[in-house]
Amino acid sequence: MSKYTTLYQHGTLALLVPGLLEGTITMGQLLKRGDTGIGTGEGLDGELIILDGKPYQVNSKGKITVVSDKFKLPFANAHFARYSPLAELENVEQDDLNKQMLALSRAENTFFSLKVTGTFADIKTRAVVKSEPPYSTLAETARKQSIFTRDQIDGTLISYYSPQLFNGAAVGGFHHHFMSDDRKFGGHVLDFRLVKGEVSYQLFDTLEQHLPVDNKAYMEHDFEKDDIEGSIQASE
Amino acid sequence: MSKYTTLYQHGTLALLVPGLLEGTITMGQLLKRGDTGIGTGEGLDGELIILDGKPYQVNSKGKITVVSDKFKLPFANAHFARYSPLAELENVEQDDLNKQMLALSRAENTFFSLKVTGTFADIKTRAVVKSEPPYSTLAETARKQSIFTRDQIDGTLISYYSPQLFNGAAVGGFHHHFMSDDRKFGGHVLDFRLVKGEVSYQLFDTLEQHLPVDNKAYMEHDFEKDDIEGSIQASE
Repeated sequence: MSKYTTLYQHGTLALLVPGLLEGTITMGQLLKRGDTGIGTGEGLDGELIILDGKPYQVNSKGKITVVSDKFKLPFANAHFARYSPLAELENVEQDDLNKQMLALSRAENTFFSLKVTGTFADIKTRAVVKSEPPYSTLAETARKQSIFTRDQIDGTLISYYSPQLFNGAAVGGFHHHFMSDDRKFGGHVLDFRLVKGEVSYQLFDTLEQHLPVDNKAYMEHDFEKDDIEGSIQASE
Repeated sequence: MSKYTTLYQHGTLALLVPGLLEGTITMGQLLKRGDTGIGTGEGLDGELIILDGKPYQVNSKGKITVVSDKFKLPFANAHFARYSPLAELENVEQDDLNKQMLALSRAENTFFSLKVTGTFADIKTRAVVKSEPPYSTLAETARKQSIFTRDQIDGTLISYYSPQLFNGAAVGGFHHHFMSDDRKFGGHVLDFRLVKGEVSYQLFDTLEQHLPVDNKAYMEHDFEKDDIEGSIQASE
């Protein structure tokens, strides 16, 4: 297992669905698994993006802060960045970019990350309002999300692609988070148009899937009743 | 990631379904990931079980050999054994043992391994006939399996349990392989009754899922058309 070909994942998308939102890894622990990543805080406390080892949180008011090593997360991805150039693009919508990059990377059946830097237009992000125990379901919590938009903004998009086979454990397909160059705008990406930018990618041959086995609520939950796929599609 | 809490998996159950049966890891490489494990050979060449670092193959004639480091596999699991005692059992059918151990381990939502040593009755195993390229589907190949039975036999059963969320990547639920103490009987387990034996278990917090990214056939395959779950249920 090479350092640069491994994607680390703590928790699963599926555990968010019934509201198992207790933080089960600290940011300090996560940063040992990578200098680049995405995630969400305990109780779905905002959207996280790690760039060059620095963990930014976009909260439900759109405020951006660098979180401490003690910050806890129920779900996160991280890897050590070593991206290779893939394409230079102009005037591309999100769906079109996803399709083009999937075709170009020829990596539909493995995990990979995209990094897109440039100017974005009509970018729409969201961040969820932190909930407190007893936690409600992902669908319920996601209804209380804030939506943010910007028309012209320079920044970086970090994306993870997971094969459809792993939908439920991860988000099947692409999962984008964004941070502006001025560190004043970001979040979980719902839509965008790339005005002009560079796309680089990093292919993984290994998913290191870590599960919160010390968390009683997770270990004792009956997942059979949860509509994992439906809920992920509605919320992500 | 601790050595003893990680389950290594090379390939996915899903890739066997359409017949992507080329060997993409050698036994030498696999043994670096564990001293205990299960797997199948290239072209579904028999059923493998690794005990104390020794890799045994049961072929379609029931013959058992220790394979070399160069032996290739399309799919395998391995881990470093550090089992803890879980139960002493008498006169238990397979389904009942599975249910009891799931309840006792309280580990339904993570990966774990069982090791059962003792006397088995009415044990039924199978081994598949090796196929050559162009490979046919798993369902097609599995129809050509040999079935072996023994009434009273001492041996070791190695089992991996995977949460249902990972069905398709792995076998959701239990996946048992067997080897007799005299090393003359074994294979993929279809049925058994444990006359008297000891069950020990080992819990994993991490699945290290390795994918054959250098294999063109795997990377270019369109999995959308495959009935992964149906085929696994019929064949495993």
